[in-house]
Amino acid sequence: MRVKMNEFDLIDRIRRRAPVGTGVVHGIGDDAAVLAPSPDHELIATTDTVQVHRHFRPGIDAADLGHLALAVNLSDLAAMGATARWCLLAMSLPDAKATWLDRFLDGFLTLADSAGCTLVGGNLARGELSVTVTALGEMAAGSACLRRGARPGDRLVLTGSIGDAAAALKTDAPASSPLGRRLVRPTPRLEAGRFLARHAHAMIDISDGIAADLAHLLGDIGTSGSIGALIHCAHLPASPALEEAITDPGQRWATQLAGGSDYELLATIPPGVEMPTIVGDTPLTEIGEITAGSGIRCATPEGRLIEPAAPGWDHFRSHPR
Amino acid sequence: MRVKMNEFDLIDRIRRRAPVGTGVVHGIGDDAAVLAPSPDHELIATTDTVQVHRHFRPGIDAADLGHLALAVNLSDLAAMGATARWCLLAMSLPDAKATWLDRFLDGFLTLADSAGCTLVGGNLARGELSVTVTALGEMAAGSACLRRGARPGDRLVLTGSIGDAAAALKTDAPASSPLGRRLVRPTPRLEAGRFLARHAHAMIDISDGIAADLAHLLGDIGTSGSIGALIHCAHLPASPALEEAITDPGQRWATQLAGGSDYELLATIPPGVEMPTIVGDTPLTEIGEITAGSGIRCATPEGRLIEPAAPGWDHFRSHPR
Repeated sequence: MRVKMNEFDLIDRIRRRAPVGTGVVHGIGDDAAVLAPSPDHELIATTDTVQVHRHFRPGIDAADLGHLALAVNLSDLAAMGATARWCLLAMSLPDAKATWLDRFLDGFLTLADSAGCTLVGGNLARGELSVTVTALGEMAAGSACLRRGARPGDRLVLTGSIGDAAAALKTDAPASSPLGRRLVRPTPRLEAGRFLARHAHAMIDISDGIAADLAHLLGDIGTSGSIGALIHCAHLPASPALEEAITDPGQRWATQLAGGSDYELLATIPPGVEMPTIVGDTPLTEIGEITAGSGIRCATPEGRLIEPAAPGWDHFRSHPR
Repeated sequence: MRVKMNEFDLIDRIRRRAPVGTGVVHGIGDDAAVLAPSPDHELIATTDTVQVHRHFRPGIDAADLGHLALAVNLSDLAAMGATARWCLLAMSLPDAKATWLDRFLDGFLTLADSAGCTLVGGNLARGELSVTVTALGEMAAGSACLRRGARPGDRLVLTGSIGDAAAALKTDAPASSPLGRRLVRPTPRLEAGRFLARHAHAMIDISDGIAADLAHLLGDIGTSGSIGALIHCAHLPASPALEEAITDPGQRWATQLAGGSDYELLATIPPGVEMPTIVGDTPLTEIGEITAGSGIRCATPEGRLIEPAAPGWDHFRSHPR
């Protein structure tokens, strides 16, 4: 049974399910949330939107969408090395169905809980399905790991594996398949992010494809761009599902490099710092290094250069999904 | 000339115009913003979306939209008594026009500057025109003014005047007219909010219509609802433009009570606290009182009861504009 509700019914439904979190003086239900920041910490703030036809298919399971909308934001906090604290949820819905909302909250609140991130406010409006989350995190003052700071000689260290989401799109993999899961259920690498931030010169999360995001690390915005990168394609970590889906290494590497929606972290680690192969349950892989020359080269073991299969996502240019 | 740009061009265009603000360690350009909260303060956080067809007309001037999207959020900070500090801007745009974005930023950044609120991050996506802003404010710990706390005998004190936006919709007033300005250029009452929060038992901003929002002050969510309110219709502050547009007092009061999009503050002030008639350039008007009985009565000078012209806004039930 689908129950149609009004805006206040829906907000109340959310409020009743949102747990009381630490550092929340007043949560959902007032004009704004009142939060207690930790002393001597900085606030890490990000906002990201996921939108039907652009970031997910119209038929997406509401629980997957709830997970996805929060995960892409937590990934940004992870890329700074932050601890997630609070979030706000602004949704546009074509209509107001309680059962749909409940399922959305299943996905959203399960991830929020596991990340230690409390839902403290939001907004509901009617419109094309679209979810904008603002995530707030904290970290000790001065310890945030930025995109800038990479130096020649740094090693490129990547969490998890990449290419699954891109392959899921390419092969139209169902959301329940291993590849499809990676598209709708990315894992924000918060624990690995905190670990890497303590050692890295620079860090970013891979959302637009590693080639595009690596360019940001090399300073494409407002800096001189005097550093480059070399990626060893054979070191790019691939899931078993990806290796099965794209057996040709050259094609697989091209897909991995173009990527998109990976939500892994890419950090540049100074020489001499020993890296474990795993943090918590997240593998770390050294995939290349920062070089003195500009540009990104992606080389096979034989020294052949690989081009990414397509440019990374540009929300104003790439094909609608 | 309309220049089509990609997502990163647009973000860079925003970054170059966003001023450096206080308490901003790292602003636009990284995975997340890094902010320095003030010691011994609480963080006040809110998010609100404005959407084409729902909250504004498709032909809205981009500068008006920029103002509107931020103003509705700052109004929520004002309703807590907070000082605005930072904001994040998530936009969905049908396409990427630099001239449109520049004009949007004219409206957005002018208001942000006057409110002391620095744009520190955001997100751009392609889709139906929609703007979600997250506003972050601060106030001394323990000093936030909530919706709950009104007591019988409190006076109802309102900032500015109400009914203009509702009348603008009713009369289809052009955006350049005095009534139309109130619809697209509401003034967030930050200074008055800080003043009122020091004295009020409870406060709310009037966005859905005074009758609907007053119901929130009386505790319609999760409380016993044992208090009510009496509004003296003849005391409802009306602008000269509204008095001219709706000359019949009964009709005018009904429009003012139903309202919507007023973005004025309504505070409940305990007896014995003297209120000025103006704070900064914002008039304060006593329009009624909190009563012991439940329900809201709106009385004419002759004791006749007035019903609001229509229920307040419900984004899942009210007519699309």
